Amino acid sequence: MSESELADPIEAADDRMDEDDRLKPEFVRAVIDAVQAGDVAEAHALVEPLHPADIADLFELTPENCRRDLAAAIADLVDADVFAEMNDYVRESLIDALDARQVADIASELDTDDAVAIIEDMEPEDQREVLRAMEPDDRAAIEEALSYPEESAGRLMQRDLIAVPEHWTVGDALDYLRRDDGLTTDFWEIYVVDPAHRPVGTCMLSWVLRAPRSVAIADVMQREQTLIPVDMDQEEVALRFQKYALISAAVIDGVGRLVGMITVDDVVHIIQQEAGEDTLLLSGAGEGDINEPIRLTVKTRLTWLVVNLATAMVAASVVGLFQGAIARYAVLAVLMPIVSGMGGNAGTQTLAVVVRAIATNQLTDTNTARMIMRELRIAAVNGATLGCLVGLGSYIVYGDEQLSLVMALAMVINNLLAGLGGVLVPVTLDRFRIDPAVSSAVFVTTLTDTGGFLSFLGLATLWGLGG
Amino acid sequence: MSESELADPIEAADDRMDEDDRLKPEFVRAVIDAVQAGDVAEAHALVEPLHPADIADLFELTPENCRRDLAAAIADLVDADVFAEMNDYVRESLIDALDARQVADIASELDTDDAVAIIEDMEPEDQREVLRAMEPDDRAAIEEALSYPEESAGRLMQRDLIAVPEHWTVGDALDYLRRDDGLTTDFWEIYVVDPAHRPVGTCMLSWVLRAPRSVAIADVMQREQTLIPVDMDQEEVALRFQKYALISAAVIDGVGRLVGMITVDDVVHIIQQEAGEDTLLLSGAGEGDINEPIRLTVKTRLTWLVVNLATAMVAASVVGLFQGAIARYAVLAVLMPIVSGMGGNAGTQTLAVVVRAIATNQLTDTNTARMIMRELRIAAVNGATLGCLVGLGSYIVYGDEQLSLVMALAMVINNLLAGLGGVLVPVTLDRFRIDPAVSSAVFVTTLTDTGGFLSFLGLATLWGLGG
Repeated sequence: MSESELADPIEAADDRMDEDDRLKPEFVRAVIDAVQAGDVAEAHALVEPLHPADIADLFELTPENCRRDLAAAIADLVDADVFAEMNDYVRESLIDALDARQVADIASELDTDDAVAIIEDMEPEDQREVLRAMEPDDRAAIEEALSYPEESAGRLMQRDLIAVPEHWTVGDALDYLRRDDGLTTDFWEIYVVDPAHRPVGTCMLSWVLRAPRSVAIADVMQREQTLIPVDMDQEEVALRFQKYALISAAVIDGVGRLVGMITVDDVVHIIQQEAGEDTLLLSGAGEGDINEPIRLTVKTRLTWLVVNLATAMVAASVVGLFQGAIARYAVLAVLMPIVSGMGGNAGTQTLAVVVRAIATNQLTDTNTARMIMRELRIAAVNGATLGCLVGLGSYIVYGDEQLSLVMALAMVINNLLAGLGGVLVPVTLDRFRIDPAVSSAVFVTTLTDTGGFLSFLGLATLWGLGG
Repeated sequence: MSESELADPIEAADDRMDEDDRLKPEFVRAVIDAVQAGDVAEAHALVEPLHPADIADLFELTPENCRRDLAAAIADLVDADVFAEMNDYVRESLIDALDARQVADIASELDTDDAVAIIEDMEPEDQREVLRAMEPDDRAAIEEALSYPEESAGRLMQRDLIAVPEHWTVGDALDYLRRDDGLTTDFWEIYVVDPAHRPVGTCMLSWVLRAPRSVAIADVMQREQTLIPVDMDQEEVALRFQKYALISAAVIDGVGRLVGMITVDDVVHIIQQEAGEDTLLLSGAGEGDINEPIRLTVKTRLTWLVVNLATAMVAASVVGLFQGAIARYAVLAVLMPIVSGMGGNAGTQTLAVVVRAIATNQLTDTNTARMIMRELRIAAVNGATLGCLVGLGSYIVYGDEQLSLVMALAMVINNLLAGLGGVLVPVTLDRFRIDPAVSSAVFVTTLTDTGGFLSFLGLATLWGLGG
């Protein structure tokens, strides 16, 4: 790779980045040391070659109490792009130290969507102050974006785009683009609109480039287009981009007029975030942002743990019903967590699969019944196998045939419960428009815990074990 | 939305798609009914207006035993694009029914990366046969792609791209694009190369379009570029695209020569998949593909469950050490699952956060120590709160002060263990280059189960409860 590295300033930064393209600890340490020693020139020299995304990372990797000093030392390098790349919480803490004028300057340099991301999290009063400090044009764009619901297409879109009338030729479009200096410079597609400013087609720039000047724009445009209503949820927007492999898409208002565009680079982090958040939501870790103030993290996680505590107590109360049998035959207490725990594991597997399938639009009303049958078949095989294993195992250890049989049976029952609950709970929640990732786990765990205890201890009592 | 729908053929399909842009069950049913009734014309009429991505979905939503009949009925609509959008397993089962000639025709129509995706999963013998049936050019491109490791940039890239020499003007480039009919039509950026065919810069098409013909290409190109080595893992490629907001990127070989390009639409599904797979891996559900043959699914999940069974037995053997105490004081058996279960929940939260932070390059050697401290602080607050709650609760139910104290203490200890293990286990695995999502959960669950039983039952015995 040695030669290729020479060709690439980002790859070449061997002393700054590790092989996974992350800032090296020694580099971060060196910057912080320079800042703390007051050596602004050194800090500046170290940070200067970095890409804005890496400068943003640098702030995230710097301990909280040094971030403002760092910002002060390399102030001229911390431009709007760096703020746009920064984690929300880290940015907020830095923005708090700036006055409204400075924030307004930063926001003015950004695309509407990035500016909105910075401004939308501010306190209403600070927000008003920043908006007052902005140019009327920028201000209007941001105020309009803020008028759309949070996490909607309206907040995500840019208003700067290229729209041309249907009757133009390629040559007209080229002349317009070369002539008008006020137009945006970064775009990937040209939108073709009718007289009412409704999009009728999209031109890939490569088609425009390859076509002779005399060709009509209408002949190089694609009529089939995916339009994004301005109030569409960003998760839905991300799914559309993915499904139809879009690079950019026109955003339309309630009467179908073109009001903005969304480009794929603004959607990529939403795809990543929405796909990754299921892991966090299923575990009750909320956003799971490691830069979140610790107080917020505790609140989110503790809420979830307290809900789980309640369900654990329900499960424990089932065990309480069988205290007498346990006192007479304590081996029951040794084995019961195996039944409940394995049911929990199996339920978590099914849940993870179903939640992903719902999130990616793969599981719909059409195939729910098929999914339930599939999971029950899997649960039957897994339950039977695990049942044989634990039955055999417990027979070897305790030499009690009836105990082994009860253990095996309970294992099968609890696996079936886990499979059934693992599909039905998230599907039902989804039907009521509740995010299945958020609350499915509580129900499924309660089911497999109480189901495990009840089936094992119940069967044991019926069999007269410990009686 | 009524007017906007008129402007958009995809949005307008109210009778086919639900509000989440998924095919309606009634529509799928109607197609299947037509196929089964042998009414090819009706099936064809129904499917014809669909986007290739939706036709692919239709196959996934059709029961397995009807898929080949469906394919036969709408054969001319099932083009290369539909195969490219289709789930791997569904596609494989359809491809199996085609002869090598037909597969070769489909592959020839696709971009290299999509053709490779179809061919790479075939049996080696079938693969050879398909390659033999292809045109020499297409065949060479695919054979070259197959020579790179699976899931590497080499498999993901297209070889068709636009590269121009540094000394050209914008006018030269425009003339070249308009003149040469053999060039690719769909591209987003032009690569500028030196005489050794090494990339020296990238031109966004919008800059080319807006520049006068006489301007040098070198003046509208961006010199700072992210180059992708051909052997880079696709997950790493996805992270680069995301971090640097790329639309397309040049792929270079070992000596830095431009060999292909990757576009963001090919990366988007990888970002989605890699971010979503953590949920599945953490639960031991493997790929979690609902179209996977059930035998494979059982194998993956059962392996994981058997490993978990072993760890559950270790935890149970800890309980076994305290059988005497439990026999004398069965309440211990009622309460012990609460301690182990709550530790498990807390551990899962930490694990989910840490695994995500590692996957997104947010947690590095620089901030690991800070992360451990953060999680321990959270665990201390959560453990203390939960300890008070269960201590109080068990005192109300059982009226035993010492039992309550033991319960509360065990809860604090197990939460701290969960927080510590939740960070250390994945971070350690990652340092040994083992995917932390795959195996962390076993270790953490073992820790919180045995830790919970040992701390609660151990403290209870020390205190002389049930003695």
